[in-house]
Amino acid sequence: MMTATKVKERSLLGLKELDASEISQLLNRTAYWDSQSEKLTPVLGAHFISNMFFENSTRTRFSFEMAEKRLGAQVLNFTAAASSVEKGESIYDTVRTLESMGIDAGVVRLKPAGVLQQLAEKVSIPLINAGDGNNEHPTQALLDLYTMSKTFGELKGLKVSIIGDIMHSRVARSNLWGLTKMGAEVQFCAPENMKAPELMAYAPYVSMEEALKADVVMMLRVQLERHATGMLQSAEEYRRQYGLTEERAATLGKSTIIMHPAPVNRNVEIDDAVVESSQSRIFPQMANGVPVRMAVLERALL
Amino acid sequence: MMTATKVKERSLLGLKELDASEISQLLNRTAYWDSQSEKLTPVLGAHFISNMFFENSTRTRFSFEMAEKRLGAQVLNFTAAASSVEKGESIYDTVRTLESMGIDAGVVRLKPAGVLQQLAEKVSIPLINAGDGNNEHPTQALLDLYTMSKTFGELKGLKVSIIGDIMHSRVARSNLWGLTKMGAEVQFCAPENMKAPELMAYAPYVSMEEALKADVVMMLRVQLERHATGMLQSAEEYRRQYGLTEERAATLGKSTIIMHPAPVNRNVEIDDAVVESSQSRIFPQMANGVPVRMAVLERALL
Amino acid sequence: MMTATKVKERSLLGLKELDASEISQLLNRTAYWDSQSEKLTPVLGAHFISNMFFENSTRTRFSFEMAEKRLGAQVLNFTAAASSVEKGESIYDTVRTLESMGIDAGVVRLKPAGVLQQLAEKVSIPLINAGDGNNEHPTQALLDLYTMSKTFGELKGLKVSIIGDIMHSRVARSNLWGLTKMGAEVQFCAPENMKAPELMAYAPYVSMEEALKADVVMMLRVQLERHATGMLQSAEEYRRQYGLTEERAATLGKSTIIMHPAPVNRNVEIDDAVVESSQSRIFPQMANGVPVRMAVLERALL
Repeated sequence: MMTATKVKERSLLGLKELDASEISQLLNRTAYWDSQSEKLTPVLGAHFISNMFFENSTRTRFSFEMAEKRLGAQVLNFTAAASSVEKGESIYDTVRTLESMGIDAGVVRLKPAGVLQQLAEKVSIPLINAGDGNNEHPTQALLDLYTMSKTFGELKGLKVSIIGDIMHSRVARSNLWGLTKMGAEVQFCAPENMKAPELMAYAPYVSMEEALKADVVMMLRVQLERHATGMLQSAEEYRRQYGLTEERAATLGKSTIIMHPAPVNRNVEIDDAVVESSQSRIFPQMANGVPVRMAVLERALL
Repeated sequence: MMTATKVKERSLLGLKELDASEISQLLNRTAYWDSQSEKLTPVLGAHFISNMFFENSTRTRFSFEMAEKRLGAQVLNFTAAASSVEKGESIYDTVRTLESMGIDAGVVRLKPAGVLQQLAEKVSIPLINAGDGNNEHPTQALLDLYTMSKTFGELKGLKVSIIGDIMHSRVARSNLWGLTKMGAEVQFCAPENMKAPELMAYAPYVSMEEALKADVVMMLRVQLERHATGMLQSAEEYRRQYGLTEERAATLGKSTIIMHPAPVNRNVEIDDAVVESSQSRIFPQMANGVPVRMAVLERALL
Repeated sequence: MMTATKVKERSLLGLKELDASEISQLLNRTAYWDSQSEKLTPVLGAHFISNMFFENSTRTRFSFEMAEKRLGAQVLNFTAAASSVEKGESIYDTVRTLESMGIDAGVVRLKPAGVLQQLAEKVSIPLINAGDGNNEHPTQALLDLYTMSKTFGELKGLKVSIIGDIMHSRVARSNLWGLTKMGAEVQFCAPENMKAPELMAYAPYVSMEEALKADVVMMLRVQLERHATGMLQSAEEYRRQYGLTEERAATLGKSTIIMHPAPVNRNVEIDDAVVESSQSRIFPQMANGVPVRMAVLERALL
């Protein structure tokens, strides 16, 4: 069994807790896996990984599963909807149960903030954060960083605008921590009711016009369902004020790239025609998610 | 990467687009896989296949998964119910996402007609139709053809009656295209409100009495839920007029076989006692689905 | 193909039908698998096992999947919620379908009593009971027996108290049959409306005070949802009368162990602080479930 410190070092709860050299190392291993033409490299052949998703997800769960299977791991999927979490079983009991049964690492997505940290204290296997509430989504940010570095060579000195619902975004937070550690400059752009007060000290809020002058324009998904109660503008109004419309996209610098964690609300935060434009990195981001997660899993288990 | 033409040739969207020699080749490979006593032949060891089901299914999804695993492929299951399609993500974005992540082929079931053809134009991996709306269900028809040829030696000259809700049936359509190309004769039998007007030119509608005089009597599932609004007869009335009752089954020719794509509504379109009678091929059809899909996957990827 | 007798011998429908030597053999093989440090022993490499869960479950399904994958089997998961059982397909048709497609064994959980026995008569592959109504849950009882024997060396002469909703508990029944065959003494403790009249002949009902004087105190989960209609005490009242509170746990003999099939209703039938106390075997039970199921699967297929 691993020591508690070792387990902690192998977990990935957030980018806030990593230093620049650890992030670099992960990005280097990502580049390694990205360069492999062989799809299957069964280095995790006798390792059991459980994807424990207490919140729905297509792409993240799928991306982890691709990464796990490319490394030859044994994969066990757990989703809350089809399980006894329905009958009130706690997240803690579920994770401890799966741990008892002998899994070697857990990939966890959940809603309540702070729970993942408590879990990590109590279990003796590495945990990987696949998104926890509005706190962090470290593998998403790592794939974003990797996508940027693949385009620009290095992260240092890049100006990155993150536009949208900062308050509720774990993607914004993880990118903020990761990018600033790597020497990039982050700025936010958001409607008043989507600003995150506790992040004011780390990145300025700028106007939409200003935000478009950057190396990277990262659009966030608007959670329309979250704002359905009328506290927010309509989708049309949001698009008009904060959407990356075709018109706005045409004003971007030639070398600026467009990113989005997906899934995209087409014609709300980003216009249909922009999603697969030549400056867009949205589908490459998804492709990059797999080698990023291979690097993270390798760090967790080898 | 494969060329666009190559990808298209490897996809299987429908039997309408195949010619007789392509169908024969698939049936020959089916026979090959059907004859193998080894369950596992890992020729697709490093290939990733995703089953993308935007519509529920037990047997088809399961049959594909058996075929994939018998060929040693890496399998990733995606079902819409447990995913962010719930939050409005489009089918296209989902398929493109999974493609970006590196799958080598996709097995797709979906409801809206015409969408699969559009998808196939836009992605660069082979797609296999696991049922799209009321358009086609080519692997089902291939397993039906294989089941018939296994019984009768050849398809040419066979008389096949397809009985039930022709209008809404992708099974009827795929069988019609496949069977006529192979030289069999198809006739339909259906209540007035279940006839498909656009198919009139390809196969005649006959009475139930006439329909029973055939080499193959293929019963279709009545979608009782679809007709629940009273536009249709009751289940009892349907059974009386169009069901393969024990009485009707007793009048069939000795060599006539009974087929059904399943799942069966016992005692509606077919009587309980007939389902596993000696003339029934309903469970053998399911068994044959696996080697058929192995042949289709092999064609897609090797 | 196996003979019908052979198939029957390889199925595991309940402990009631096993004799002491068969149980011993399974416990011995459990000990063997429990002692292996290698996680992966692919002796079932070309065997296809389907987990067919017509009733929700986290831990049991997961535990079987771990066991199957540790033995290298090909695993196909079927859960009713995401399938066409929704559209009225019968359990029988589903199991027969999966059998037709070539699975080598089925792990089945279902609600209606008596159905599993009928299924086992009709199919020609071994079936393993993963819980059927309130009838039996043999692998749970085997892991309970194994957990006891691991603590006490042997089962003969042990006094085991089973406390809670005996009437609705398949765990209580399987433990009763297994334990008495192995020479242990079972006693029950339950509120009047949770007693199982038909078990009176096999084990006495004792008071809570009496029940605590035992080698093993096994708490059952209260199905609060089942008793929501007011025919039962409140959760607080249940805890007061039949819960293993911290106070009651403190009165247990030093060598007494605490068990629970989980999932636990913390602070209803068992206090939070007791769940992971030193006398508790609740998480070890879960760990033991995997080698038990490896032994059961090995018996079914090798």
